[in-house]
Amino acid sequence: MTEPTYVVGHQQPDTDTICSALAYARLKQEQGTAAVAARAGDVNPETEFVLDRWDVDAPELLEDAAGEQLILVDHNEYSQTVTGARDAEVVEIVDHHRIGDVETSSPILFRNEPVGSTATILTQLFDDADETITTQTAGLLLSGLLSDTVVLRSPTTTERDRTVAARLAEIADVDYESYGKELLMHKSKIGEKSPREMVLSDFKEFQFDSRKVGIGQIETVEPSVVLDQRDAVLEAMEEIATERDYAVFLLLVTDLLEEDSTALVAGPEIATVEDGLDTMFSDREAFLPGVMSRKKQVVPPLEDAFY
Amino acid sequence: MTEPTYVVGHQQPDTDTICSALAYARLKQEQGTAAVAARAGDVNPETEFVLDRWDVDAPELLEDAAGEQLILVDHNEYSQTVTGARDAEVVEIVDHHRIGDVETSSPILFRNEPVGSTATILTQLFDDADETITTQTAGLLLSGLLSDTVVLRSPTTTERDRTVAARLAEIADVDYESYGKELLMHKSKIGEKSPREMVLSDFKEFQFDSRKVGIGQIETVEPSVVLDQRDAVLEAMEEIATERDYAVFLLLVTDLLEEDSTALVAGPEIATVEDGLDTMFSDREAFLPGVMSRKKQVVPPLEDAFY
Ligand SMILES: [Mn+2]
Ligand SMILES: [Mn+2]
Repeated sequence: MTEPTYVVGHQQPDTDTICSALAYARLKQEQGTAAVAARAGDVNPETEFVLDRWDVDAPELLEDAAGEQLILVDHNEYSQTVTGARDAEVVEIVDHHRIGDVETSSPILFRNEPVGSTATILTQLFDDADETITTQTAGLLLSGLLSDTVVLRSPTTTERDRTVAARLAEIADVDYESYGKELLMHKSKIGEKSPREMVLSDFKEFQFDSRKVGIGQIETVEPSVVLDQRDAVLEAMEEIATERDYAVFLLLVTDLLEEDSTALVAGPEIATVEDGLDTMFSDREAFLPGVMSRKKQVVPPLEDAFY
Repeated sequence: MTEPTYVVGHQQPDTDTICSALAYARLKQEQGTAAVAARAGDVNPETEFVLDRWDVDAPELLEDAAGEQLILVDHNEYSQTVTGARDAEVVEIVDHHRIGDVETSSPILFRNEPVGSTATILTQLFDDADETITTQTAGLLLSGLLSDTVVLRSPTTTERDRTVAARLAEIADVDYESYGKELLMHKSKIGEKSPREMVLSDFKEFQFDSRKVGIGQIETVEPSVVLDQRDAVLEAMEEIATERDYAVFLLLVTDLLEEDSTALVAGPEIATVEDGLDTMFSDREAFLPGVMSRKKQVVPPLEDAFY
């Protein structure tokens, strides 16, 4: 039997990561690759809603990727990959983030584009390959796209995302505005989590120079649910920063309706964050008007400040 | 005035690098970017023939890229970039090599595909953008493609390269077999060079773990011109390896007609090369049957052996 190639997204998988793994595994299968959709962690409530809505099983949990062949989707840095990825062979990458630290020995397909979601690029890859996008696949891709772009409201949204969303919505036979609002509702279901679960639910770790920096984000229509527990949340963040030796743990509480964020911060290097984001923290809290995108509005200036 | 964006290939530029810089700068200009084709070093005799044949000026020499905006073509690692690239902003990459060490703060277009030349990918980008490929641009792209694939004979050649070559040849109005042979003739004009110039004329440096490794290649229809000067060539290689602190300096003398290579080696870590290439050097020389591609047949196993 042929060894499978796992199509896998980042840790703390979000809807774009899960739906991209599922959709790209389908495309690769159509093209004759023994591809298997995989995931690096638990499926979040928003994604559960999506899988249920389109009647698709969750990708298989890949606990250790060592020795496997991997296609990375929706990320391209080791600090965000599945366990064992450094000892795996990366055979392809499709992503829409900054260029990270994955190197390969052989030439591979690496398609990274500055668009709103990995799903947007995958739609193009189906078209390039002249493969039909089924209703179900369109539903998955649309969900990834709408989730990552906050229903086309995030500043990462491009014209191409809009065009692709309209086309996918037609194939999937849904109104993307109302379907998108349903998605956001499920993204917001954070009330029942512990502060620690909450701050780690959408979390990424970065290596900036010699320092490790953690950046979490909670996208919600009710920021007060988080901010009302401010002290407990900050305590959880401080604990995690100490355990993992972070220079900084930054949490963005993003108000999806007002399109801004409140930042909370823990760890020793707060001044560097103030410098990078051009803001001042008062009692470890700062308001960031217009900030919705970790990737586009927070990571680049922070990286600059740390180097 | 808008700051220009330089489109630049690797050091020791070859025909694919120069023609890709020229062609992609044209495409970006059509799309409204203030793009300027640039080069990181001297144009080789083969490329001079190409520029003359298609009546195109050589790209501008970029001596120091610090502070500039760069589009990297035909390479994606710092050890091969123009001086100052680490202090420049890389805004796009189009390449067909292994994934190297370039990282960015923001999401960018990075289009790397395992095909025979960067020119092959650029032809696709013209099509994707619905931009016409002029006779002159087709001549440049075809030259890059035929040079890198040794007129479609190299093992890096894919079906797509063949299709694209046929199409470009039609637009450029040449027979690609006979035009390709003219190219190879110029690639082979190495007789008048000093041994040092010869071994450095198509040369790449790699960082494998903590060791620096240099790999040169001379592609020729007359390998005897090089091998008859074996001792002088080895002396030049030993000199360079010492100056630059290389673990190994490997030179591939590739016979374009027989489609094999003779390897010469200098530096202290010869045993690692023997291990990687599964060969034995006798008096610092080894015959490598079927080996034509540094990128595909030599770099990956060497990298494995050094880690
Ligand atoms: Mn994404
Ligand atoms: Mn090339």
